Amino acid sequence: MYLNGRILPEQEAAISPFDIGLLRAYAVFDLLRTVNGAPFMLTEHLRRFRLSAAHLGLVVPVADDAVFSAVDELLRINEHREATIRMVLTGGVSPDGMSFDPSTPTFFILTHELHEPPASTYTEGARLLIREHSRELPEAKTTGYLTALKNRPAVVEVGALDLLYHDGGVISEAATASFYLVRDGEIHAPSEGVLWGTVGSFALGLVRDRYDIVPGPMTLDDAFSAEEAFLTSTTRGVVPIVRLDDRPIGDGRVGPVTKDLMAAFRAAAFGDPESGEAGSGE
Amino acid sequence: MYLNGRILPEQEAAISPFDIGLLRAYAVFDLLRTVNGAPFMLTEHLRRFRLSAAHLGLVVPVADDAVFSAVDELLRINEHREATIRMVLTGGVSPDGMSFDPSTPTFFILTHELHEPPASTYTEGARLLIREHSRELPEAKTTGYLTALKNRPAVVEVGALDLLYHDGGVISEAATASFYLVRDGEIHAPSEGVLWGTVGSFALGLVRDRYDIVPGPMTLDDAFSAEEAFLTSTTRGVVPIVRLDDRPIGDGRVGPVTKDLMAAFRAAAFGDPESGEAGSGE
Repeated sequence: MYLNGRILPEQEAAISPFDIGLLRAYAVFDLLRTVNGAPFMLTEHLRRFRLSAAHLGLVVPVADDAVFSAVDELLRINEHREATIRMVLTGGVSPDGMSFDPSTPTFFILTHELHEPPASTYTEGARLLIREHSRELPEAKTTGYLTALKNRPAVVEVGALDLLYHDGGVISEAATASFYLVRDGEIHAPSEGVLWGTVGSFALGLVRDRYDIVPGPMTLDDAFSAEEAFLTSTTRGVVPIVRLDDRPIGDGRVGPVTKDLMAAFRAAAFGDPESGEAGSGE
Repeated sequence: MYLNGRILPEQEAAISPFDIGLLRAYAVFDLLRTVNGAPFMLTEHLRRFRLSAAHLGLVVPVADDAVFSAVDELLRINEHREATIRMVLTGGVSPDGMSFDPSTPTFFILTHELHEPPASTYTEGARLLIREHSRELPEAKTTGYLTALKNRPAVVEVGALDLLYHDGGVISEAATASFYLVRDGEIHAPSEGVLWGTVGSFALGLVRDRYDIVPGPMTLDDAFSAEEAFLTSTTRGVVPIVRLDDRPIGDGRVGPVTKDLMAAFRAAAFGDPESGEAGSGE
Protein backbone atom coordinates (compact mmCIF):
# COMPACT_ATOMS: atom_id res chain seq x y z
CA MET A 1 0.00 0.00 0.00
CA TYR A 2 0.89 3.67 -0.28
CA LEU A 3 0.94 5.72 2.95
CA ASN A 4 1.97 9.37 3.19
CA GLY A 5 4.52 9.24 0.38
CA ARG A 6 5.86 5.69 0.85
CA ILE A 7 5.06 2.30 -0.62
CA LEU A 8 5.17 -0.32 2.14
CA PRO A 9 3.79 -3.76 3.03
CA GLU A 10 0.27 -3.65 4.48
CA GLN A 11 1.45 -5.42 7.63
CA GLU A 12 3.92 -2.59 8.31
CA ALA A 13 1.44 0.18 7.54
CA ALA A 14 0.28 1.54 10.86
CA ILE A 15 -2.53 4.03 11.15
CA SER A 16 -2.31 5.93 14.43
CA PRO A 17 -5.10 5.18 16.93
CA PHE A 18 -5.26 8.99 17.31
CA ASP A 19 -6.11 9.47 13.62
CA ILE A 20 -9.15 11.75 13.37
CA GLY A 21 -10.41 9.60 10.48
CA LEU A 22 -10.77 6.78 12.99
CA LEU A 23 -11.79 8.70 16.15
CA ARG A 24 -14.21 11.13 14.46
CA ALA A 25 -14.80 9.76 10.94
CA TYR A 26 -13.28 12.90 9.45
CA ALA A 27 -12.23 11.37 6.15
CA VAL A 28 -13.05 11.10 2.46
CA PHE A 29 -12.20 8.44 -0.07
CA ASP A 30 -12.64 7.42 -3.65
CA LEU A 31 -12.70 4.09 -5.38
CA LEU A 32 -12.04 2.94 -8.91
CA ARG A 33 -11.37 -0.27 -10.79
CA THR A 34 -8.92 -1.49 -13.35
CA VAL A 35 -9.87 -2.62 -16.85
CA ASN A 36 -7.37 -5.06 -18.32
CA GLY A 37 -5.06 -4.13 -15.46
CA ALA A 38 -5.10 -0.38 -16.10
CA PRO A 39 -6.90 2.15 -13.86
CA PHE A 40 -10.26 3.16 -15.36
CA MET A 41 -11.13 6.88 -15.13
CA LEU A 42 -8.41 7.58 -12.56
CA THR A 43 -8.25 11.25 -13.56
CA GLU A 44 -11.99 11.69 -12.95
CA HIS A 45 -11.89 9.82 -9.65
CA LEU A 46 -8.90 11.83 -8.47
CA ARG A 47 -10.74 15.03 -9.37
CA ARG A 48 -13.78 13.90 -7.37
CA PHE A 49 -11.50 12.86 -4.48
CA ARG A 50 -10.01 16.36 -4.40
CA LEU A 51 -13.49 17.91 -4.42
CA SER A 52 -14.60 15.64 -1.56
CA ALA A 53 -11.50 16.70 0.39
CA ALA A 54 -12.28 20.38 -0.20
CA HIS A 55 -15.75 19.90 1.33
CA LEU A 56 -13.95 18.94 4.56
CA GLY A 57 -11.36 21.72 4.32
CA LEU A 58 -8.69 19.17 3.41
CA VAL A 59 -6.23 19.00 0.51
CA VAL A 60 -4.83 15.84 -1.11
CA PRO A 61 -1.16 16.53 -0.35
CA VAL A 62 0.42 15.32 -3.61
CA ALA A 63 0.16 16.15 -7.29
CA ASP A 64 -1.78 13.98 -9.75
CA ASP A 65 1.46 12.57 -11.21
CA ALA A 66 2.52 11.22 -7.83
CA VAL A 67 -0.86 9.48 -7.43
CA PHE A 68 -0.59 7.99 -10.93
CA SER A 69 2.91 6.67 -10.12
CA ALA A 70 1.85 5.23 -6.75
CA VAL A 71 -1.16 3.47 -8.30
CA ASP A 72 1.00 2.04 -11.10
CA GLU A 73 3.51 0.71 -8.60
CA LEU A 74 0.82 -0.81 -6.35
CA LEU A 75 -0.75 -2.59 -9.33
CA ARG A 76 2.67 -3.88 -10.43
CA ILE A 77 3.55 -5.19 -6.93
CA ASN A 78 0.16 -6.62 -5.96
CA GLU A 79 -0.54 -8.57 -9.16
CA HIS A 80 -4.34 -8.52 -9.06
CA ARG A 81 -6.32 -10.05 -11.89
CA GLU A 82 -8.43 -6.89 -11.82
CA ALA A 83 -8.18 -4.49 -8.89
CA THR A 84 -10.26 -2.08 -6.87
CA ILE A 85 -8.13 0.96 -6.03
CA ARG A 86 -9.07 2.88 -2.88
CA MET A 87 -7.70 6.33 -2.02
CA VAL A 88 -8.35 7.59 1.53
CA LEU A 89 -7.65 11.00 3.06
CA THR A 90 -8.22 11.87 6.73
CA GLY A 91 -7.61 15.01 8.81
CA GLY A 92 -4.53 13.31 10.27
CA VAL A 93 -3.42 12.57 13.81
CA SER A 94 -5.22 14.43 16.61
CA PRO A 95 -3.59 15.06 20.00
CA ASP A 96 -6.92 15.21 21.86
CA GLY A 97 -9.41 13.40 19.63
CA MET A 98 -11.02 16.63 18.45
CA SER A 99 -8.51 19.13 17.05
CA PHE A 100 -6.22 18.39 14.12
CA ASP A 101 -3.89 20.18 11.73
CA PRO A 102 -5.27 20.05 8.16
CA SER A 103 -1.75 20.61 6.81
CA THR A 104 -0.69 17.14 7.97
CA PRO A 105 -3.42 14.80 6.67
CA THR A 106 -3.17 11.02 6.43
CA PHE A 107 -3.28 9.89 2.79
CA PHE A 108 -3.18 6.26 1.77
CA ILE A 109 -3.99 4.07 -1.23
CA LEU A 110 -5.00 0.40 -1.00
CA THR A 111 -5.73 -2.11 -3.71
CA HIS A 112 -8.06 -5.10 -3.38
CA GLU A 113 -8.90 -7.87 -5.80
CA LEU A 114 -12.04 -6.84 -7.72
CA HIS A 115 -15.04 -9.02 -6.84
CA GLU A 116 -17.64 -9.44 -9.58
CA PRO A 117 -21.34 -10.12 -9.13
CA PRO A 118 -22.82 -13.03 -11.04
CA ALA A 119 -23.72 -12.49 -14.70
CA SER A 120 -27.40 -12.97 -13.77
CA THR A 121 -27.30 -9.60 -11.99
CA TYR A 122 -27.03 -8.03 -15.45
CA THR A 123 -29.29 -10.38 -17.39
CA GLU A 124 -32.11 -10.68 -14.83
CA GLY A 125 -31.67 -7.41 -12.96
CA ALA A 126 -31.18 -6.73 -9.28
CA ARG A 127 -33.24 -5.72 -6.28
CA LEU A 128 -32.73 -2.83 -3.84
CA LEU A 129 -34.09 -2.47 -0.31
CA ILE A 130 -35.62 0.92 0.47
CA ARG A 131 -34.41 2.85 3.53
CA GLU A 132 -35.09 6.40 4.68
CA HIS A 133 -31.72 8.07 5.13
CA SER A 134 -29.93 11.27 4.11
CA ARG A 135 -26.17 11.19 3.88
CA GLU A 136 -24.31 13.85 5.81
CA LEU A 137 -22.57 16.14 3.29
CA PRO A 138 -23.84 14.09 0.30
CA GLU A 139 -21.75 15.93 -2.31
CA ALA A 140 -18.59 14.51 -0.70
CA LYS A 141 -17.64 10.85 -0.69
CA THR A 142 -17.06 10.54 3.04
CA THR A 143 -16.42 7.35 4.98
CA GLY A 144 -19.82 7.57 6.72
CA TYR A 145 -21.51 4.24 5.85
CA LEU A 146 -23.17 3.44 9.16
CA THR A 147 -26.66 2.94 7.73
CA ALA A 148 -25.29 1.01 4.75
CA LEU A 149 -23.28 -1.44 6.88
CA LYS A 150 -25.93 -1.79 9.58
CA ASN A 151 -28.40 -2.85 6.86
CA ARG A 152 -25.96 -5.09 5.03
CA PRO A 153 -27.07 -8.33 6.74
CA ALA A 154 -30.65 -7.60 5.56
CA VAL A 155 -29.42 -6.92 2.02
CA VAL A 156 -27.41 -10.14 1.92
CA GLU A 157 -30.20 -12.20 3.49
CA VAL A 158 -32.72 -11.46 0.73
CA GLY A 159 -30.17 -11.49 -2.08
CA ALA A 160 -30.56 -7.77 -2.83
CA LEU A 161 -27.73 -5.76 -4.34
CA ASP A 162 -27.81 -2.57 -2.29
CA LEU A 163 -30.00 -0.06 -0.44
CA LEU A 164 -31.98 2.76 -2.06
CA TYR A 165 -32.06 5.91 0.10
CA HIS A 166 -34.93 8.38 0.19
CA ASP A 167 -35.88 11.31 2.41
CA GLY A 168 -39.64 11.62 2.88
CA GLY A 169 -40.21 9.72 -0.35
CA VAL A 170 -37.70 11.73 -2.41
CA ILE A 171 -35.02 9.42 -3.81
CA SER A 172 -31.35 10.40 -3.52
CA GLU A 173 -29.10 7.46 -4.40
CA ALA A 174 -28.22 3.87 -3.63
CA ALA A 175 -25.86 3.30 -0.68
CA THR A 176 -22.94 2.62 -3.02
CA ALA A 177 -24.21 3.72 -6.44
CA SER A 178 -26.15 6.33 -8.40
CA PHE A 179 -29.79 5.60 -9.24
CA TYR A 180 -31.80 6.49 -12.35
CA LEU A 181 -35.31 5.97 -13.70
CA VAL A 182 -36.62 5.61 -17.24
CA ARG A 183 -40.02 7.32 -17.65
CA ASP A 184 -41.74 8.00 -20.95
CA GLY A 185 -38.51 7.00 -22.67
CA GLU A 186 -36.50 9.70 -20.86
CA ILE A 187 -33.73 9.04 -18.34
CA HIS A 188 -34.37 10.78 -15.00
CA ALA A 189 -31.44 11.54 -12.71
CA PRO A 190 -31.44 13.05 -9.19
CA SER A 191 -29.31 16.19 -9.35
CA GLU A 192 -29.11 17.54 -5.79
CA GLY A 193 -28.07 16.01 -2.50
CA VAL A 194 -26.21 13.22 -4.24
CA LEU A 195 -22.64 12.34 -5.05
CA TRP A 196 -21.59 13.10 -8.61
CA GLY A 197 -21.38 9.71 -10.32
CA THR A 198 -18.25 9.15 -12.37
CA VAL A 199 -19.47 6.09 -14.24
CA GLY A 200 -23.02 7.45 -14.40
CA SER A 201 -21.83 10.64 -16.11
CA PHE A 202 -19.63 8.67 -18.47
CA ALA A 203 -22.36 6.17 -19.38
CA LEU A 204 -25.11 8.77 -19.88
CA GLY A 205 -22.74 10.80 -22.02
CA LEU A 206 -22.59 7.85 -24.44
CA VAL A 207 -26.35 7.82 -25.09
CA ARG A 208 -27.35 11.45 -24.75
CA ASP A 209 -28.03 11.69 -28.50
CA ARG A 210 -30.58 8.87 -28.19
CA TYR A 211 -32.39 9.73 -24.94
CA ASP A 212 -33.41 12.92 -23.16
CA ILE A 213 -31.72 13.12 -19.78
CA VAL A 214 -33.82 14.95 -17.20
CA PRO A 215 -32.16 16.07 -13.97
CA GLY A 216 -34.40 16.78 -11.00
CA PRO A 217 -36.14 15.32 -7.97
CA MET A 218 -37.73 11.87 -8.24
CA THR A 219 -39.94 10.08 -5.74
CA LEU A 220 -40.62 6.48 -4.78
CA ASP A 221 -44.02 6.89 -6.48
CA ASP A 222 -42.18 7.92 -9.65
CA ALA A 223 -40.06 4.78 -9.36
CA PHE A 224 -43.05 2.47 -9.08
CA SER A 225 -44.69 4.04 -12.13
CA ALA A 226 -41.44 4.05 -14.15
CA GLU A 227 -40.76 1.72 -17.09
CA GLU A 228 -37.20 0.92 -15.98
CA ALA A 229 -34.63 1.67 -13.31
CA PHE A 230 -30.87 1.18 -13.20
CA LEU A 231 -27.88 2.08 -11.09
CA THR A 232 -24.34 2.97 -12.03
CA SER A 233 -21.27 2.34 -9.94
CA THR A 234 -17.55 2.39 -10.43
CA THR A 235 -17.00 -1.28 -9.82
CA ARG A 236 -20.32 -2.62 -11.14
CA GLY A 237 -20.90 -0.44 -14.19
CA VAL A 238 -24.56 -0.21 -15.29
CA VAL A 239 -26.91 -2.58 -13.44
CA PRO A 240 -30.63 -3.02 -14.17
CA ILE A 241 -32.86 -2.66 -11.09
CA VAL A 242 -36.08 -4.61 -11.44
CA ARG A 243 -37.43 -4.61 -7.89
CA LEU A 244 -37.56 -2.27 -4.88
CA ASP A 245 -38.28 -4.19 -1.67
CA ASP A 246 -40.98 -6.61 -2.87
CA ARG A 247 -42.45 -4.48 -5.67
CA PRO A 248 -41.43 -4.73 -9.32
CA ILE A 249 -40.34 -1.77 -11.44
CA GLY A 250 -42.26 -1.79 -14.75
CA ASP A 251 -42.81 -5.41 -15.76
CA GLY A 252 -40.01 -6.61 -13.44
CA ARG A 253 -37.68 -7.38 -16.35
CA VAL A 254 -34.63 -5.69 -17.81
CA GLY A 255 -35.90 -2.99 -20.20
CA PRO A 256 -34.64 -1.85 -23.61
CA VAL A 257 -33.17 1.49 -22.51
CA THR A 258 -31.13 -0.16 -19.77
CA LYS A 259 -29.97 -2.86 -22.20
CA ASP A 260 -28.92 -0.21 -24.69
CA LEU A 261 -27.04 1.73 -21.99
CA MET A 262 -25.30 -1.41 -20.68
CA ALA A 263 -24.13 -2.29 -24.18
CA ALA A 264 -22.91 1.24 -24.88
CA PHE A 265 -21.02 1.35 -21.56
CA ARG A 266 -19.40 -2.04 -22.03
CA ALA A 267 -18.35 -1.22 -25.56
CA ALA A 268 -16.77 2.06 -24.45
CA ALA A 269 -15.21 0.76 -21.23
CA PHE A 270 -14.22 -2.79 -22.17
CA GLY A 271 -14.33 -2.75 -25.98
CA ASP A 272 -16.92 -5.54 -25.92
CA PRO A 273 -20.68 -5.06 -25.46
CA GLU A 274 -21.20 -8.68 -24.37
CA SER A 275 -18.60 -9.09 -21.64
CA GLY A 276 -16.93 -7.18 -18.86
CA GLU A 277 -19.43 -7.42 -16.05
CA ALA A 278 -18.03 -5.23 -13.35
CA GLY A 279 -17.46 -5.94 -9.68
CA SER A 280 -19.36 -5.56 -6.44
CA GLY A 281 -18.73 -2.54 -4.32
CA GLU A 282 -19.43 0.95 -5.60
CA MET B 1 -2.77 2.42 25.37
CA TYR B 2 -4.85 -0.74 25.47
CA LEU B 3 -5.44 -2.56 22.15
CA ASN B 4 -7.27 -5.87 21.81
CA GLY B 5 -6.18 -7.26 25.18
CA ARG B 6 -2.68 -5.79 25.42
CA ILE B 7 -1.20 -2.67 27.00
CA LEU B 8 1.42 -1.19 24.64
CA PRO B 9 3.14 2.10 23.79
CA GLU B 10 1.08 4.33 21.50
CA GLN B 11 3.89 4.42 18.93
CA GLU B 12 3.72 0.61 18.63
CA ALA B 13 -0.06 0.50 18.43
CA ALA B 14 -0.98 0.00 14.80
CA ILE B 15 -4.53 0.19 13.56
CA SER B 16 -4.88 -1.64 10.25
CA PRO B 17 -5.57 0.57 7.22
CA PHE B 18 -8.26 -2.03 6.43
CA ASP B 19 -10.09 -1.39 9.71
CA ILE B 20 -13.78 -0.84 8.94
CA GLY B 21 -13.84 1.87 11.63
CA LEU B 22 -11.46 3.85 9.42
CA LEU B 23 -12.70 2.87 5.94
CA ARG B 24 -16.45 3.04 6.69
CA ALA B 25 -16.75 4.78 10.06
CA TYR B 26 -18.33 1.67 11.55
CA ALA B 27 -17.38 2.37 15.15
CA VAL B 28 -18.66 3.53 18.52
CA PHE B 29 -16.85 5.06 21.45
CA ASP B 30 -17.33 6.47 24.90
CA LEU B 31 -15.46 9.03 26.91
CA LEU B 32 -15.11 9.76 30.60
CA ARG B 33 -12.88 11.77 32.91
CA THR B 34 -11.03 11.17 36.12
CA VAL B 35 -11.76 13.02 39.37
CA ASN B 36 -8.75 13.12 41.67
CA GLY B 37 -7.15 10.54 39.41
CA ALA B 38 -9.98 8.00 39.62
CA PRO B 39 -12.39 7.23 36.74
CA PHE B 40 -15.70 9.05 37.22
CA MET B 41 -18.84 7.02 36.38
CA LEU B 42 -16.88 4.35 34.52
CA THR B 43 -19.60 1.75 35.13
CA GLU B 44 -22.25 4.01 33.56
CA HIS B 45 -20.03 4.90 30.60
CA LEU B 46 -19.17 1.27 30.00
CA ARG B 47 -22.86 0.40 30.08
CA ARG B 48 -23.59 3.12 27.50
CA PHE B 49 -20.63 1.94 25.41
CA ARG B 50 -22.06 -1.59 25.33
CA LEU B 51 -25.48 -0.24 24.31
CA SER B 52 -23.90 1.83 21.51
CA ALA B 53 -22.08 -1.28 20.31
CA ALA B 54 -25.34 -3.27 20.30
CA HIS B 55 -26.93 -0.65 17.99
CA LEU B 56 -24.23 -1.60 15.45
CA GLY B 57 -24.53 -5.33 16.04
CA LEU B 58 -21.19 -5.34 17.86
CA VAL B 59 -20.16 -6.63 21.27
CA VAL B 60 -17.42 -5.22 23.52
CA PRO B 61 -15.26 -8.35 23.63
CA VAL B 62 -14.18 -8.27 27.31
CA ALA B 63 -15.86 -8.27 30.71
CA ASP B 64 -16.25 -5.11 32.81
CA ASP B 65 -13.49 -6.25 35.17
CA ALA B 66 -10.96 -6.40 32.34
CA VAL B 67 -11.89 -2.84 31.28
CA PHE B 68 -11.55 -1.61 34.87
CA SER B 69 -8.09 -3.22 35.13
CA ALA B 70 -6.93 -1.83 31.78
CA VAL B 71 -8.09 1.68 32.69
CA ASP B 72 -6.35 1.48 36.08
CA GLU B 73 -3.11 0.38 34.45
CA LEU B 74 -3.27 3.10 31.77
CA LEU B 75 -3.83 5.77 34.42
CA ARG B 76 -0.91 4.41 36.48
CA ILE B 77 1.46 4.33 33.48
CA ASN B 78 0.46 7.62 31.85
CA GLU B 79 0.58 9.82 34.97
CA HIS B 80 -1.98 12.44 33.90
CA ARG B 81 -2.92 15.23 36.30
CA GLU B 82 -6.52 14.47 35.35
CA ALA B 83 -7.32 12.29 32.34
CA THR B 84 -9.88 11.84 29.61
CA ILE B 85 -10.39 8.11 29.02
CA ARG B 86 -11.57 7.08 25.54
CA MET B 87 -12.88 3.59 24.70
CA VAL B 88 -13.30 2.79 20.97
CA LEU B 89 -14.85 -0.27 19.31
CA THR B 90 -14.92 -0.86 15.54
CA GLY B 91 -16.20 -3.72 13.38
CA GLY B 92 -12.58 -4.85 12.91
CA VAL B 93 -10.43 -5.49 9.87
CA SER B 94 -12.23 -5.82 6.52
CA PRO B 95 -10.75 -7.76 3.60
CA ASP B 96 -12.61 -5.72 0.98
CA GLY B 97 -13.55 -2.46 2.69
CA MET B 98 -17.19 -3.50 3.07
CA SER B 99 -17.62 -6.86 4.78
CA PHE B 100 -16.31 -7.64 8.26
CA ASP B 101 -16.62 -10.28 10.95
CA PRO B 102 -18.34 -8.85 14.05
CA SER B 103 -16.73 -11.58 16.18
CA THR B 104 -13.29 -9.99 15.70
CA PRO B 105 -13.79 -6.30 16.51
CA THR B 106 -11.04 -3.79 17.20
CA PHE B 107 -11.22 -2.51 20.79
CA PHE B 108 -8.86 0.08 22.20
CA ILE B 109 -8.62 2.50 25.11
CA LEU B 110 -6.66 5.76 25.02
CA THR B 111 -6.06 8.33 27.73
CA HIS B 112 -5.42 12.04 27.14
CA GLU B 113 -4.62 14.85 29.55
CA LEU B 114 -7.93 16.53 30.51
CA HIS B 115 -8.18 20.08 29.14
CA GLU B 116 -10.28 22.47 31.17
CA PRO B 117 -12.18 25.49 29.85
CA PRO B 118 -11.61 28.82 31.63
CA ALA B 119 -13.52 29.47 34.85
CA SER B 120 -15.39 32.27 33.06
CA THR B 121 -17.23 29.63 31.03
CA TYR B 122 -19.02 28.72 34.27
CA THR B 123 -19.36 32.17 35.81
CA GLU B 124 -20.38 34.09 32.67
CA GLY B 125 -21.91 31.29 30.63
CA ALA B 126 -21.15 30.06 27.15
CA ARG B 127 -22.47 30.47 23.63
CA LEU B 128 -23.56 27.81 21.11
CA LEU B 129 -23.82 28.14 17.33
CA ILE B 130 -27.03 26.74 15.82
CA ARG B 131 -26.81 24.22 12.99
CA GLU B 132 -29.48 22.08 11.33
CA HIS B 133 -28.30 18.48 11.58
CA SER B 134 -29.61 15.08 12.68
CA ARG B 135 -27.12 12.52 13.86
CA GLU B 136 -27.26 9.14 12.17
CA LEU B 137 -28.34 6.58 14.79
CA PRO B 138 -28.50 9.23 17.56
CA GLU B 139 -29.05 6.75 20.41
CA ALA B 140 -25.54 5.34 19.80
CA LYS B 141 -22.33 7.25 20.43
CA THR B 142 -20.80 6.67 17.02
CA THR B 143 -17.64 8.27 15.65
CA GLY B 144 -19.62 10.32 13.10
CA TYR B 145 -18.62 13.93 13.88
CA LEU B 146 -18.34 15.31 10.34
CA THR B 147 -20.67 18.27 10.89
CA ALA B 148 -19.15 18.97 14.31
CA LEU B 149 -15.57 19.06 13.03
CA LYS B 150 -16.39 20.87 9.80
CA ASN B 151 -17.97 23.65 11.91
CA ARG B 152 -15.23 23.71 14.53
CA PRO B 153 -13.27 26.59 12.95
CA ALA B 154 -16.46 28.72 13.07
CA VAL B 155 -17.01 27.75 16.73
CA VAL B 156 -13.44 28.60 17.68
CA GLU B 157 -13.45 31.84 15.68
CA VAL B 158 -16.33 33.40 17.62
CA GLY B 159 -15.32 31.93 20.97
CA ALA B 160 -18.38 29.67 21.19
CA LEU B 161 -18.29 26.43 23.16
CA ASP B 162 -20.08 24.01 20.83
CA LEU B 163 -22.85 23.58 18.23
CA LEU B 164 -26.55 23.16 19.00
CA TYR B 165 -28.27 20.78 16.57
CA HIS B 166 -31.89 21.06 15.48
CA ASP B 167 -34.03 19.43 12.81
CA GLY B 168 -36.62 21.79 11.37
CA GLY B 169 -36.48 23.88 14.54
CA VAL B 170 -36.74 20.93 16.95
CA ILE B 171 -33.68 20.81 19.21
CA SER B 172 -31.86 17.53 19.75
CA GLU B 173 -28.52 18.09 21.48
CA ALA B 174 -25.21 19.92 21.33
CA ALA B 175 -22.51 18.34 19.15
CA THR B 176 -20.66 17.01 22.20
CA ALA B 177 -23.15 17.52 25.06
CA SER B 178 -26.76 17.24 26.19
CA PHE B 179 -28.86 20.41 26.16
CA TYR B 180 -31.62 21.53 28.55
CA LEU B 181 -33.93 24.51 29.03
CA VAL B 182 -35.45 26.06 32.14
CA ARG B 183 -38.99 27.30 31.48
CA ASP B 184 -41.45 28.40 34.17
CA GLY B 185 -39.04 27.02 36.74
CA GLU B 186 -39.14 23.51 35.22
CA ILE B 187 -36.20 21.75 33.56
CA HIS B 188 -37.01 20.61 30.00
CA ALA B 189 -35.02 17.77 28.45
CA PRO B 190 -35.19 16.34 24.91
CA SER B 191 -36.03 12.67 25.26
CA GLU B 192 -35.96 11.19 21.76
CA GLY B 193 -33.36 11.16 19.01
CA VAL B 194 -30.59 11.99 21.45
CA LEU B 195 -27.80 10.18 23.22
CA TRP B 196 -28.54 9.28 26.83
CA GLY B 197 -26.44 11.71 28.89
CA THR B 198 -24.47 10.13 31.71
CA VAL B 199 -23.60 13.36 33.52
CA GLY B 200 -26.98 14.90 32.62
CA SER B 201 -28.85 12.01 34.23
CA PHE B 202 -26.59 12.11 37.27
CA ALA B 203 -26.88 15.88 37.72
CA LEU B 204 -30.66 16.04 37.25
CA GLY B 205 -31.05 13.19 39.70
CA LEU B 206 -29.49 15.43 42.35
CA VAL B 207 -32.13 18.14 42.04
CA ARG B 208 -35.26 16.26 41.10
CA ASP B 209 -36.82 16.97 44.49
CA ARG B 210 -36.47 20.71 43.85
CA TYR B 211 -37.47 21.03 40.16
CA ASP B 212 -39.93 19.31 37.88
CA ILE B 213 -38.10 17.62 35.03
CA VAL B 214 -40.14 17.54 31.81
CA PRO B 215 -39.01 15.22 29.02
CA GLY B 216 -40.24 15.98 25.51
CA PRO B 217 -39.60 17.89 22.31
CA MET B 218 -38.30 21.47 22.53
CA THR B 219 -37.90 24.00 19.75
CA LEU B 220 -35.59 26.92 19.04
CA ASP B 221 -38.55 29.21 19.78
CA ASP B 222 -38.84 27.52 23.19
CA ALA B 223 -35.16 28.22 23.76
CA PHE B 224 -35.46 31.92 22.98
CA SER B 225 -38.42 32.30 25.34
CA ALA B 226 -36.76 30.21 28.11
CA GLU B 227 -35.40 31.70 31.34
CA GLU B 228 -32.22 29.66 31.25
CA ALA B 229 -30.35 27.01 29.26
CA PHE B 230 -27.48 24.71 30.16
CA LEU B 231 -25.59 21.75 28.80
CA THR B 232 -24.12 18.73 30.50
CA SER B 233 -21.10 16.77 29.34
CA THR B 234 -18.78 14.19 30.75
CA THR B 235 -15.68 16.32 30.70
CA ARG B 236 -17.29 19.75 31.25
CA GLY B 237 -19.97 18.94 33.81
CA VAL B 238 -22.84 21.47 33.92
CA VAL B 239 -22.26 24.59 31.79
CA PRO B 240 -24.61 27.60 31.60
CA ILE B 241 -25.58 28.56 28.03
CA VAL B 242 -26.43 32.25 27.77
CA ARG B 243 -26.43 32.80 24.00
CA LEU B 244 -27.42 30.91 20.82
CA ASP B 245 -25.75 32.45 17.77
CA ASP B 246 -26.13 36.19 18.50
CA ARG B 247 -29.30 36.02 20.59
CA PRO B 248 -29.37 35.87 24.40
CA ILE B 249 -31.27 33.26 26.39
CA GLY B 250 -33.36 34.98 29.09
CA ASP B 251 -31.43 38.02 30.30
CA GLY B 252 -28.15 36.65 28.91
CA ARG B 253 -26.78 35.85 32.37
CA VAL B 254 -26.31 32.67 34.37
CA GLY B 255 -29.64 31.94 36.06
CA PRO B 256 -30.47 30.63 39.53
CA VAL B 257 -31.58 27.12 38.50
CA THR B 258 -28.35 26.53 36.56
CA LYS B 259 -26.29 27.88 39.48
CA ASP B 260 -28.10 25.55 41.84
CA LEU B 261 -27.52 22.58 39.52
CA MET B 262 -23.82 23.42 39.03
CA ALA B 263 -23.32 23.60 42.78
CA ALA B 264 -25.16 20.33 43.38
CA PHE B 265 -23.15 18.57 40.68
CA ARG B 266 -19.80 19.86 41.91
CA ALA B 267 -20.58 18.92 45.46
CA ALA B 268 -21.54 15.41 44.45
CA ALA B 269 -18.79 14.86 41.89
CA PHE B 270 -15.88 16.77 43.42
CA GLY B 271 -16.93 17.24 47.06
CA ASP B 272 -16.72 21.02 46.66
CA PRO B 273 -19.45 23.25 45.22
CA GLU B 274 -16.98 26.08 44.43
CA SER B 275 -14.25 24.22 42.54
CA GLY B 276 -13.76 21.41 40.09
CA GLU B 277 -14.62 23.01 36.79
CA ALA B 278 -14.56 20.19 34.32
CA GLY B 279 -12.73 19.87 31.02
CA SER B 280 -13.38 20.61 27.39
CA GLY B 281 -14.56 17.85 25.15
CA GLU B 282 -17.79 16.01 25.77
